Amino acid sequence: MATTEPTAPFLRACHKLPTDHTPVWFMRQAGRYMPEYRAIRAQYSMLETIQTPELAAEITLQPVNAFNFDAAIIFSDILPPLVGMGLDLEFVKGVGPRINKAITATRDVDMLSTPPAEEIMGGTLAAIKLAVAELEPRGIPLIGFAGAPFTLASYAIEGGGSKNYTKAKTFMYSEPAAWKRLMNKLVTVQADYLINQAKAGASALQLFDSWAGHALGREDYKRYVQPYNTALFKMLERAGVPLINFSTGTSSYLDVVASCGGNVVGVDWHMPLDWAWEHIGYDRAIQGNLDPVALLAPWRELKARIDDVLDRANGRPGHIFNLGHGIFPNVPVDNVRRAVDYVHERSGRP
Amino acid sequence: MATTEPTAPFLRACHKLPTDHTPVWFMRQAGRYMPEYRAIRAQYSMLETIQTPELAAEITLQPVNAFNFDAAIIFSDILPPLVGMGLDLEFVKGVGPRINKAITATRDVDMLSTPPAEEIMGGTLAAIKLAVAELEPRGIPLIGFAGAPFTLASYAIEGGGSKNYTKAKTFMYSEPAAWKRLMNKLVTVQADYLINQAKAGASALQLFDSWAGHALGREDYKRYVQPYNTALFKMLERAGVPLINFSTGTSSYLDVVASCGGNVVGVDWHMPLDWAWEHIGYDRAIQGNLDPVALLAPWRELKARIDDVLDRANGRPGHIFNLGHGIFPNVPVDNVRRAVDYVHERSGRP
Repeated sequence: MATTEPTAPFLRACHKLPTDHTPVWFMRQAGRYMPEYRAIRAQYSMLETIQTPELAAEITLQPVNAFNFDAAIIFSDILPPLVGMGLDLEFVKGVGPRINKAITATRDVDMLSTPPAEEIMGGTLAAIKLAVAELEPRGIPLIGFAGAPFTLASYAIEGGGSKNYTKAKTFMYSEPAAWKRLMNKLVTVQADYLINQAKAGASALQLFDSWAGHALGREDYKRYVQPYNTALFKMLERAGVPLINFSTGTSSYLDVVASCGGNVVGVDWHMPLDWAWEHIGYDRAIQGNLDPVALLAPWRELKARIDDVLDRANGRPGHIFNLGHGIFPNVPVDNVRRAVDYVHERSGRP
Repeated sequence: MATTEPTAPFLRACHKLPTDHTPVWFMRQAGRYMPEYRAIRAQYSMLETIQTPELAAEITLQPVNAFNFDAAIIFSDILPPLVGMGLDLEFVKGVGPRINKAITATRDVDMLSTPPAEEIMGGTLAAIKLAVAELEPRGIPLIGFAGAPFTLASYAIEGGGSKNYTKAKTFMYSEPAAWKRLMNKLVTVQADYLINQAKAGASALQLFDSWAGHALGREDYKRYVQPYNTALFKMLERAGVPLINFSTGTSSYLDVVASCGGNVVGVDWHMPLDWAWEHIGYDRAIQGNLDPVALLAPWRELKARIDDVLDRANGRPGHIFNLGHGIFPNVPVDNVRRAVDYVHERSGRP
């Protein structure tokens, strides 16, 4: 933690300090809905944009240049660390990411290496330095991030997107010792990666557990996820920056999720914000939770939904306004501008 | 309700009466995991098997002939009533169902008709009569079913499977009056369809709301789903048979779901059964909730998970053992046999 109080509203909210307005950023704010982003992606592949520091830094800055976001998030993806560990990742146009030789057996787990982040994610660490050099003078914090062990493990086993996670769960149930080794390897790699993002200048770190909640019920989460996320958050205390614990599909066991760690708990749009905060505990900051579909609705409806989130936060220090999941590619740019400005205006920005 | 106490354990459990063993059936128990089913589907399309009473009745009987299930469920699908209402439904091999001209505007809703079930679902009603003639002498109850209004409405708008339900929700937010008309039309059609299934001989009726919980948070469910499901359950009281209110993805607002109606609340695998029953209320019967992936796990793990569900039910009258969602096509037949027999054995069947 910083020894002096931070001034940026986003960082103050992470520490539950009062702010002059509710800070706001959107998950996947650097993305397809922006024409500037599409212009770059027309020339470079997904992996090229992630691995080229100048391109990744440029994309990171696009949304904070276009809108009044209170934080930037480094442009990257959760999956590239898997490449460094020895898996064959490909971004297939129109389909999404794919692991060409997915994990099917215990020996595939044993083959995975745990190299240091400097070696396997050097491009992203360099991009963070470039982006921070631009953002720091403007007083805008940069968020670093990584995927949580379960989400990465299930990707590595399913080989791509999944509806029911049958392969990952069958592996988990059938090979508990290999599952444990896989999760521990991911904890090692992700802890080093996140700590190095903070060293490179990231002012906060978000862990994305996008899949655990959809794949697992409360008891499985406690058995197969909680020990690893808890260990990871413990290791991340060394980073000395606020930690954001984000997950989706976990609304019925937010208490268990929150117990893993993090200064801030990021919640999806599946429950009212006040209900979520009560279940998480008011000693923690909360991030969320506008339904991303609201950005496709008429302004009357969008405004009512922003009001609802702010009403439920009730001005309590420690609320970071965000979507409940990533922004959709077909969202009109004007709706993003209007939403961000309205959050500021309604919550007191002069 | 029956004026005399039923004898079949499944029906007794629906009424929270004590049983000599825990009754069990599996959602989608007549399906691809059975070689007998695949043999029929090799010769006939999905719609042909549904619309030909002899085929649908034969498929309905397959799982109760092969395993000791305590109930049969009529072989059909939730979507065919949409054809009768005027939509163009197709089952695309390897993809699943597709609506070729999905609803995009208010006038598409106005074009939908609400014909009686005898006219549009006569094949399924005839299949119920055939199946009941076989099942009744054996003392096995037949369950009729239909899709809940939200699940059908979102299908009609999305045109097929959906990940984020953006089209359905955008329509719902943008055209609230048309949404209301659409939902009311579906309530009319589904109420008549379900009541006629009971008249044809179904001993219980299950409403499947497979999508509402994944698409909507608590507050949206209360606004856009609850009034219609409540109206539908109210109309179904006339059917005079137990009603099962099944949904998935609703674990954080089971109280709201349960308030819509039904003698039995069917829950998915996302929460412990005792936790779910407490949130639903012990005045209602409960159906569930083995994770369908458990049927792909080694017996040691599968048995432990069956034990867990039964331990949490704790012998309380009103528990119907089921999966938390439909059985997967790649489940080994032997695991189904072993699971069903073990539920009976552990819960006291002589």
